[in-house]
Amino acid sequence: MGKRMHNFNAGPAALPLPVLEEIQSELLDYKGSGMSILEVSHRSKWFDEVINEAVERTKRLLGLGDDFEVLFIQGGASLQFCMIPMNLGIPGKPVEYINTGTWSTKAIKEAQVQGKNVAVIASSEDKNFSYIPREFTVNPDAAYLHFTSNNTIKGTQWTQFPDAGEVPLICDMSSDIMSRPFDPRPFGLIYAGAQKNIGPAGTALVIIRKDMLERVPEDIPTMLKYTTFSGKNSMFNTPACFVIYTISLVMKWLEETIGGLDKMEAINREKGSLLYGCIDDSDFYQGTAATDSRSLMNVTFRLPDEDLEKQFVAEALEEGLGGLKGHRSVGGCRASIYNATGIDGVSALVDFMQEFEIKNG
Amino acid sequence: MGKRMHNFNAGPAALPLPVLEEIQSELLDYKGSGMSILEVSHRSKWFDEVINEAVERTKRLLGLGDDFEVLFIQGGASLQFCMIPMNLGIPGKPVEYINTGTWSTKAIKEAQVQGKNVAVIASSEDKNFSYIPREFTVNPDAAYLHFTSNNTIKGTQWTQFPDAGEVPLICDMSSDIMSRPFDPRPFGLIYAGAQKNIGPAGTALVIIRKDMLERVPEDIPTMLKYTTFSGKNSMFNTPACFVIYTISLVMKWLEETIGGLDKMEAINREKGSLLYGCIDDSDFYQGTAATDSRSLMNVTFRLPDEDLEKQFVAEALEEGLGGLKGHRSVGGCRASIYNATGIDGVSALVDFMQEFEIKNG
Repeated sequence: MGKRMHNFNAGPAALPLPVLEEIQSELLDYKGSGMSILEVSHRSKWFDEVINEAVERTKRLLGLGDDFEVLFIQGGASLQFCMIPMNLGIPGKPVEYINTGTWSTKAIKEAQVQGKNVAVIASSEDKNFSYIPREFTVNPDAAYLHFTSNNTIKGTQWTQFPDAGEVPLICDMSSDIMSRPFDPRPFGLIYAGAQKNIGPAGTALVIIRKDMLERVPEDIPTMLKYTTFSGKNSMFNTPACFVIYTISLVMKWLEETIGGLDKMEAINREKGSLLYGCIDDSDFYQGTAATDSRSLMNVTFRLPDEDLEKQFVAEALEEGLGGLKGHRSVGGCRASIYNATGIDGVSALVDFMQEFEIKNG
Repeated sequence: MGKRMHNFNAGPAALPLPVLEEIQSELLDYKGSGMSILEVSHRSKWFDEVINEAVERTKRLLGLGDDFEVLFIQGGASLQFCMIPMNLGIPGKPVEYINTGTWSTKAIKEAQVQGKNVAVIASSEDKNFSYIPREFTVNPDAAYLHFTSNNTIKGTQWTQFPDAGEVPLICDMSSDIMSRPFDPRPFGLIYAGAQKNIGPAGTALVIIRKDMLERVPEDIPTMLKYTTFSGKNSMFNTPACFVIYTISLVMKWLEETIGGLDKMEAINREKGSLLYGCIDDSDFYQGTAATDSRSLMNVTFRLPDEDLEKQFVAEALEEGLGGLKGHRSVGGCRASIYNATGIDGVSALVDFMQEFEIKNG
């Protein structure tokens, strides 16, 4: 095996090395079955154990009570953008959104396409989505309030979640789920594309509070109903078995190697301090997110000019630091430092940044 | 590694061993990238090559002209059941279906849920779906004619596809795609859940004739539009990267090791002859499908009584022959012998069946 890259990709992203090694070691014979995990039936005892473990570990890590169900639905967060208003809108009531960037904007669009009564109650578009809005009023009659907990492209993150009173929160946590503990009780639904913090691409993790299931209309397509998945442990049809298997291994790593979400958060805070510290100590690097809205998952920054940024990304890659180019829609640089990126990776990046500044500053 | 099972599962199903070995060998370092294929960005040169190879090999193997596009859409064949009428229905025109079993029935239901004008022009429900209907009349004004090429549960298969004149055929080929060559020109759309003949669970392969894209309505959710996928090489959002990677390796195996679909069909015919020959030579085993409608992919049969069937399935498993239980909705026995099941596997099964008959017949 060649040298392993420090992987700062925004998603698909780094996975814990022990998880990859476990997948590799049992790829031809899953636990004595004589089959690969890629070949076992989703109706088998082997896969039942896999999906049940993924669900149970998710519930334990997030402290979810029995009033929540954990589902796996293909199509990524993008399919959830349309399933949420389709399933959880209430006729005659507005659906409310806070717009903090590209992904929120897409979620809003999919509610509008369906002709829902959409209210965008706050937005940071006035400053290019560089901050998290603090001032807004939630209509107590709203069907739900949707927000995006972490914004991969702009590098912002909610430190404290919005208070919507009795209105259920719905949150796209694709890029920071399992990075920190939080109180799940105000949430009607939480969803996350797997490919950032919990696994490879190919499924969304959907956590739904059971009372939300009562809203699901009868007359929508079967595969777009949350009740289709909740009633069958996500196996109305064949689920994304291998992705769920990998998620179960990542959850095991979170519980047994890291030691839970308090520990994970402490590590993530240390990584963030290191990297933002480097940026703040320098006039060469400029963070693009407002200081009080900075993401601990996606650190976005600029160099003095675009040529230097190109040179930075290219030289970093030569040093084994990959994926540092900003999203194609905004340019600049971005280091995604999800759970699986260790302090060693962030330290190596900071060392490189300091050397690069000395040479080119 | 333990002894490899002869895997007769209906799906997820056996994969070619060289494909599994290649995945395992490069799982920690994909082609010198320093990353696992599970970790590389879908916007990277590595994944671009993967998806382009999967598309190009599919086109070559099936002899698809430039008037076809090859897409990968999550959600399995079950999501296609609703996307097809939503995208390809034409206001004022009927959508026509032939009902040959469980999967066709589900496809019909999803068109009805959407309030489409559904005409079921033929059905074999009168004889428990044990045959393929030969007599039907296609309305030349229909938007499309939908059928299921192979019926995994009942063990039937179309040997010659229906002639619908100018009406585009739409076909669920989940369980026999790539098992034989055919003329793609009458097809407006072909779809297949990956987990039977071409890869692991987690994506559908969708082949669409470009003129069909003109039918896609503007006002449906983004992730349910075929044009969302066709315009972006299936990467409007993050696709099921690992599944597509595995598909590209299975397609390579089909082209380079098997030698194309003519060769694959010859092997499948030989496997079918062996197994149906064993059934026909015996009074102990009874095939459940009409002789002229027998599937070369899923061979369904009964033993004299249910206790013997249970014993058969259990003893076979001890001999390393797995997955022989019939679908839970019909009982009996079923051997799924997709592309990746070799003649050696079928021979081993036939040997076991003959011995079992001698002992218990």
